[in-house]
Formats: sequence, structure tokens, C-alpha cells
Amino acid sequence: MIIDKLYANTARNGPVCLGLDTSPAYLPESFAKGFDTEAEAVFAFNRALIDATHDVVACYKVQIAYYEAMGIEGLKAYSETLSYIKSVHQISIADIKRGDIAATAEMYAKAHFSGDFEADMITLNPYMGLDSLEPYRPWLEKGKGCFVLVRTSNKGSRDIQFQDVEGGKLYGRVADMVQSFGANFMGNCGYSNAGAVVGATNAEEGAALRRRLDKTFLLIPGYGAQGGAAGDAALYLTNGNGGVVNNSRAILTAHRKHDDGAARFAACARMEAVAMRDAILSCLN
Amino acid sequence: MIIDKLYANTARNGPVCLGLDTSPAYLPESFAKGFDTEAEAVFAFNRALIDATHDVVACYKVQIAYYEAMGIEGLKAYSETLSYIKSVHQISIADIKRGDIAATAEMYAKAHFSGDFEADMITLNPYMGLDSLEPYRPWLEKGKGCFVLVRTSNKGSRDIQFQDVEGGKLYGRVADMVQSFGANFMGNCGYSNAGAVVGATNAEEGAALRRRLDKTFLLIPGYGAQGGAAGDAALYLTNGNGGVVNNSRAILTAHRKHDDGAARFAACARMEAVAMRDAILSCLN
Repeated sequence: MIIDKLYANTARNGPVCLGLDTSPAYLPESFAKGFDTEAEAVFAFNRALIDATHDVVACYKVQIAYYEAMGIEGLKAYSETLSYIKSVHQISIADIKRGDIAATAEMYAKAHFSGDFEADMITLNPYMGLDSLEPYRPWLEKGKGCFVLVRTSNKGSRDIQFQDVEGGKLYGRVADMVQSFGANFMGNCGYSNAGAVVGATNAEEGAALRRRLDKTFLLIPGYGAQGGAAGDAALYLTNGNGGVVNNSRAILTAHRKHDDGAARFAACARMEAVAMRDAILSCLN
Repeated sequence: MIIDKLYANTARNGPVCLGLDTSPAYLPESFAKGFDTEAEAVFAFNRALIDATHDVVACYKVQIAYYEAMGIEGLKAYSETLSYIKSVHQISIADIKRGDIAATAEMYAKAHFSGDFEADMITLNPYMGLDSLEPYRPWLEKGKGCFVLVRTSNKGSRDIQFQDVEGGKLYGRVADMVQSFGANFMGNCGYSNAGAVVGATNAEEGAALRRRLDKTFLLIPGYGAQGGAAGDAALYLTNGNGGVVNNSRAILTAHRKHDDGAARFAACARMEAVAMRDAILSCLN
């Protein structure tokens, strides 16, 4: 079960999820100019960051949109990045937010749990309902994992997720749906292979959502760039585990904070990841 | 404005949208065995179908999941299929159902409105809210189009879309959000570049949703395989226009209904598309 490996990684390395939303614009110019294509530069940059951080992060989240935007060559870099994460025995979360049903969802499962784009875990969008999750069931039973969007922290989350429905907010219903679905794929660690994406929030709501999702591992985005802070993220953790906190841009561009950062961008990323890990761990009760 | 071209195509060719959800399993064996890879066979099959149908369908919807499932080679076939649709002056709808925010959504827009995967229109998932649509605005202003998931006809649509919220069902709120967003990109035909995906439904609900979305062009899935019929689809049309009705499997596998279908699969697909068009048009008031 991938969730047991993620739990062990989080216990050993801390709860940082490094987001490889690698825009070519984030790369040091001196580094990027050594490659024929943007996509090759992006993969080489990712590889250097993975080498420098694999023992201080719980997992890597690879945002496919950045690679799709580079076309076929970008998707080769995406595929190579996932393979490289596997080669260092780390965990990949493919941030694909797919949401479809029946045969189409089966195709997405095949696409992202096997072959060129094989990842350990994927993110899913629940708008079409529970039957948009069901096609992933055979893969989750075999040990793959997913994170379903429950509650995001962008302004637009009010438009749908925060609507009042019977029994509370809509996202609460989705939370229950995910936890119930996950009961079919429980790991030894007490969490299931079906996790939830929940944005950083205020203390009261965070604690309530953590209790409601007590068997559901959390993927917590929005650290740094979207305004979330270490204390907000820590609210979602139980004994420092049960969730990972994603940070992309601040780690990918950490080299910009240092005068000689371009020459040692991977070391800068490691320092940033370690500082983030320690900031979160220091906020735990 | 792409919506004016789609309106004209619908008026001229009828409201059939041919869904190229081309599973390699749908291809006649005798045809498929002439190719080195599944992906090459799929593209050649698509090309033959496009040649045979481009004057009897309004547009093509290409379901990316089927191509992602074939990895890098599959995405080359996807790219070639989109290019081929463009080369015959037809309209491509990339059924990608992406849903994300900010810089990530900008990357999806770049990915699917330019470069290797350029399509005329794309499908989007609204779960993250209005700000997940906003990043597409500059592209819609320049004439590209989208269809936002509003109300699907799968069983799981009850889980979220049909929840009671203030003022009615949640999908009604989403419908209003899409129509309001679309007001920024109105075509001369009276519809906007921001369309809606609405599954075939019962008469009363269909008429109400059509009135509510009176300036929004509709993409209507679920014909045939998912149980929708010509009469259900016709409910959503106004003077035979204002929407297109997708059919994938029944057209792609039409050759199976004929003894010598394998040898003339493209002609079989054309007959099926024409029969579907005529069935819908015969149900119009």
C-alpha cells in the first residue's frame, strides 16, 4: 500500500511535498542555456533537485499542466521526471486533477498508473460524483493511491465547495464520500490509499476537517505562494503525520534568494525545503 | 469567434458531434494489423472517419484520456488528430475536463490552445470555482472556446451537482456562473464562446435548463451508450441549433453492425452519423 510508504517517508523525512511545477522561467538562465530544448532543461533541473532533496521531503508532486504546456517534448520530460523519482525510491504524486466516468476514467487510470506516465498517486476531481472515483478502485486495491479534491483555498472555492447543503458545507459531503471510499483500501498506518486535497485554513475549520477525515491522508497545497503558513498546515497533522504540505515555487526558485544561487540552485532548494520542514515541525503541538 | 463557426456548422451539417474516443479495441482487426503501433492505427482510423464524416457533423470531440492511455505515442496520435481536423476546416473540441487555478490553469490554456495540442475548444471542470475559468479569458476573447461541466447524466451526478443549495440545485448555480462568464465573449449567433456540458435528461428539466442557458451553447453527451435518445437531445436545441449532441462508440464501432463492415468502416460511420442526425432533426418541434 502506497499510503504506508508515504506515512513512513513523512515520519522519517518530515511532511514536505516538493511540487515540481517546473516552469522554464524558474530555471537559472546560466543553467537553462546549456540545453537544446526547454523540456530537456526542465528535466535536468528536476533531476538535480530530486538528487538534492529526496531525503528531506516525503514525496514529489508533479503538476502535469506545466509539461503539457511544452507539448510532446514536455510530456517526455514529465515521463522522465516520474521515472527518476521512482529510481531514487521516492514517491510521485501526479497532479492531474482528472475527473471523468466509466470507460474514460478507466483510460485515465491506465494512463497514469502504468506505462509512460506511471505515478504512485494521482489527484482527482470529484465534480461528477462517486462513480468518477470507482474506476480507480482496482488500482487502489493493488496499492496505488489518489488524492481527491475536497476543499481548496482559492477564492473560487466559495462558488461550489462552500455552498450550504443538507448537513453542512458541500465540501463536507465530499470529505465523507472520500473517507467512505477509502475504507476499501486501508493501510497499516491507519490511513487509506484514497487521500484528500484540503487547502490550508483557519484553526477551527482545520481541526474539524482533520477529525472528520481521521482515516484520510491529506495533501495540503497553498503553502507560501498562496498565503498558507506553517501554523496553518500544522493544524492538519496528527503527531506530525497524516498529511503532506506542498510547496512548489518557493523551493524551485530558492536560488533567487542567494547571490550565488544560480551556481548551486539544488543546494538552495534543499535549504528551503529543510527550513519549511523545520518551520512546520516547530508548530506541532 | 469559434462559436459562430460552430453555429454555422450546426446549421449546415446538423447537430452531431462525433466523439473520437478511439479505443484501439474499436478498430477492425484487419485494419489495425497493418500498423506498427496501436497509436498509428488509431490516428489512421480517425483520419479515415474524419474524411468520411466532416460534412455531416458539426464538430469533433477528442477524448484525451484514450490517447494518454497510450503514453507518448498516443499523444502524438492525439496531436495529429487535432491537426487533421483543422486541415479539413472542421472544429475540434478537446475533451480534457481540466480544472485548476492561477498559473496552473494558464499552463493548461497554453497547452490546449496552442502548440502540439492546439484545439478550438476545450472542456473544463468547475469544482474549484469561477477563478478556475478566469485564466482562459484571454484565449476566449481571442476566439477560442470552452464547454464547462454543468450537469452530467451519470448516476454520480446526484452526489454534488444535484445537491440542494440556496435557490435550487447546485448545477443551476454553475449554469448561471457559466452564462455570466460567457457574456464577455458573445458571438454574432447569440451564443458565447463559453459553453456548457449538459447531459440528456427529462423533458421538464431540459426545457428549464435550456431557458436558463439561453445564451450558452450546449455540448450534450450521453447519446446512445449512456442511454440518451434523440428526443432527449432535441429538447436542448432551439430551431435545431444552440447545441451539439455527442456520440462516440456507436459511430466508431458502426462497422460491427454490417457483415462487410470492416472493409468499409468509414462509410459505416458516416451512415451511423447521418442516421443519428436525421433522428434528432425529426424530433425537433
